[in-house]
Amino acid sequence: MTTAKRDTYTPETLLSVAVQVFNERGYDGTSMEHLSRAAGISKSSIYHHVTGKEELLRRAVSRALDGLFGILDEEPARTGRASDRLEHVVHRMVEVLIAELPYVTLLLRVRGNTDTERWALDRRRDFDHRVAALMQAAAADGDIRSDVDGRLATRLVFGMINSIVEWYRPEIRGMGEREVADAVAKVVFEGLRRGD
Amino acid sequence: MTTAKRDTYTPETLLSVAVQVFNERGYDGTSMEHLSRAAGISKSSIYHHVTGKEELLRRAVSRALDGLFGILDEEPARTGRASDRLEHVVHRMVEVLIAELPYVTLLLRVRGNTDTERWALDRRRDFDHRVAALMQAAAADGDIRSDVDGRLATRLVFGMINSIVEWYRPEIRGMGEREVADAVAKVVFEGLRRGD
Repeated sequence: MTTAKRDTYTPETLLSVAVQVFNERGYDGTSMEHLSRAAGISKSSIYHHVTGKEELLRRAVSRALDGLFGILDEEPARTGRASDRLEHVVHRMVEVLIAELPYVTLLLRVRGNTDTERWALDRRRDFDHRVAALMQAAAADGDIRSDVDGRLATRLVFGMINSIVEWYRPEIRGMGEREVADAVAKVVFEGLRRGD
Repeated sequence: MTTAKRDTYTPETLLSVAVQVFNERGYDGTSMEHLSRAAGISKSSIYHHVTGKEELLRRAVSRALDGLFGILDEEPARTGRASDRLEHVVHRMVEVLIAELPYVTLLLRVRGNTDTERWALDRRRDFDHRVAALMQAAAADGDIRSDVDGRLATRLVFGMINSIVEWYRPEIRGMGEREVADAVAKVVFEGLRRGD
């Protein structure tokens, strides 16, 4: 039985267990022992797949970062007016966050105590800057209000989007990736007040 | 010197030190020993002021909750159209959050392991519901868009506001309580897109 279980373990399933444990205990508070118990395989079996917990962290946050950076390569994020590109990016950020919920949750909790964490923070900052640049370009085009500071607007929009990891649960009815993404885009770009 | 220091300690200054330590270490991770070292007074001196760390937590989150609930008692939150009352509440929530930053930060991190934490979560939920009810009333008046679910809109607005504790630092230039509150109200009610 044990052997069978080991054989069915893939780097992918191990990663998904590890992310869950990291999110529950915090990365610092997670030992290889915790991972071994949660995965139901021995520590040496884990070492067969990865060099240690830092590699699991790197793979997990890479998955979130690849999802986010992937958005910037999408056609509607690359061509057209900056404000339309920005709207596409905001929309897709919500979808990626929900699709990769545990991975993005982990990414957002990274604090910077290890090389991998500092690398992840750098990449997050890079992504934030690219979205902020899009916000600035849209403001320069005159499509985005100029009476709210661009950096502040970016922080508020990221704040709204990132807060989704705190309350989103797939089982909440009528709140799929699409509904939440649409709602965020509407609030952010058009506001809650009803137009006349 | 030690005696002099003890004498100048008030429940107020002790509270401010405790909140800082709770925010840094987490409430669960904070011992009376940590508080004693951070405050530079003996544990017995702390016990002279409070029964223990749970009382300090209760006082700290009470300060945040009193600030938030106080908003709902303000004249512009009680009279007038629901949408104007909602806008006042959103504006003042940001101001209170920034004015009481460490206390609100602690409140938002409470997880519910002790009676005091569960009580704080209940009160937070109560506050959220009262703002959600205002959102619903504004939608019923036809002043707030009806194509975004009210609960979802409330969560997104709270998400944007609460995220301020993650990045706000008083030393950031040009970002006083007023500027941030104005920016949040503009984005939330009017949206980022420039009207024609």
